[in-house]
Amino acid sequence: MKTLRNMIPLMIIIVVVAGVVYAKFDRAEDAIRYRQAVMVLIGQHFGRMAEVVKGSQAFDQSTFEKETDVLETLATLPWEAFLYPGSDRGKTQLKSKALENREDFMTAAREFEQQTADLAVVARKGDLEAVKAQVGAVAQTCKGCHGTYRSR
Amino acid sequence: MKTLRNMIPLMIIIVVVAGVVYAKFDRAEDAIRYRQAVMVLIGQHFGRMAEVVKGSQAFDQSTFEKETDVLETLATLPWEAFLYPGSDRGKTQLKSKALENREDFMTAAREFEQQTADLAVVARKGDLEAVKAQVGAVAQTCKGCHGTYRSR
Repeated sequence: MKTLRNMIPLMIIIVVVAGVVYAKFDRAEDAIRYRQAVMVLIGQHFGRMAEVVKGSQAFDQSTFEKETDVLETLATLPWEAFLYPGSDRGKTQLKSKALENREDFMTAAREFEQQTADLAVVARKGDLEAVKAQVGAVAQTCKGCHGTYRSR
Repeated sequence: MKTLRNMIPLMIIIVVVAGVVYAKFDRAEDAIRYRQAVMVLIGQHFGRMAEVVKGSQAFDQSTFEKETDVLETLATLPWEAFLYPGSDRGKTQLKSKALENREDFMTAAREFEQQTADLAVVARKGDLEAVKAQVGAVAQTCKGCHGTYRSR
């Protein structure tokens, strides 16, 4: 009974995600193309932040804040596409274990979302050292998820 | 003198845009890849809205509002990438006249941004007929820009 009670939140997550997923993509190829596009944008915008952290770009707070807002929005977008049935095959680096362990995958995804949301908050305080630390925290969540769920 | 005065805002726009562009993309290929990724996402999210308008998806106001917010953000992203020098060559459908008539191109781009921002406002009022009309207005700006600046 305890096990069942523990499983209920997971069951709800799966039903909700699955319901949304089926409504949004007609084919696995579309889901793959969509999530890869999101990752191109995340890479570009996060790359700009990394340049600020490295000092190769100046820290302009207003610009940086806008970048963090864009990143925060982008970070919410690709997860349903990653969990689209069958989208671990074809032109993708997604490991099948993402689909086999949806709850673990979504925990990692939510961690990334949370860290990007925190970055938008930290950026508004204008403390470059704190910004650098939080960019590092975001990078860790990128790395963690890629290390586990991306092949190559 | 009058001509010069009229040109000053344009000159400022070009300098600002060019300054930002050079900071953001190292190569034309990167700019092309970035803007194509943005267009994949715009197509996906706007496509979902079109399904609601056509009646093949139910109108859920909360979901629709979120979609319009995402679209509004996406609509602001690709313009600097479109104006990247030399990015009218290579794997792209961009016509050279976008780069040759930057001011006209940006006028069309801003019109699209404005219509998507208006859509986010309209969506919040919850009137499906008004939403449909505004989705149509957005679609017109897509079509206008593609008709002028996209080959094929």
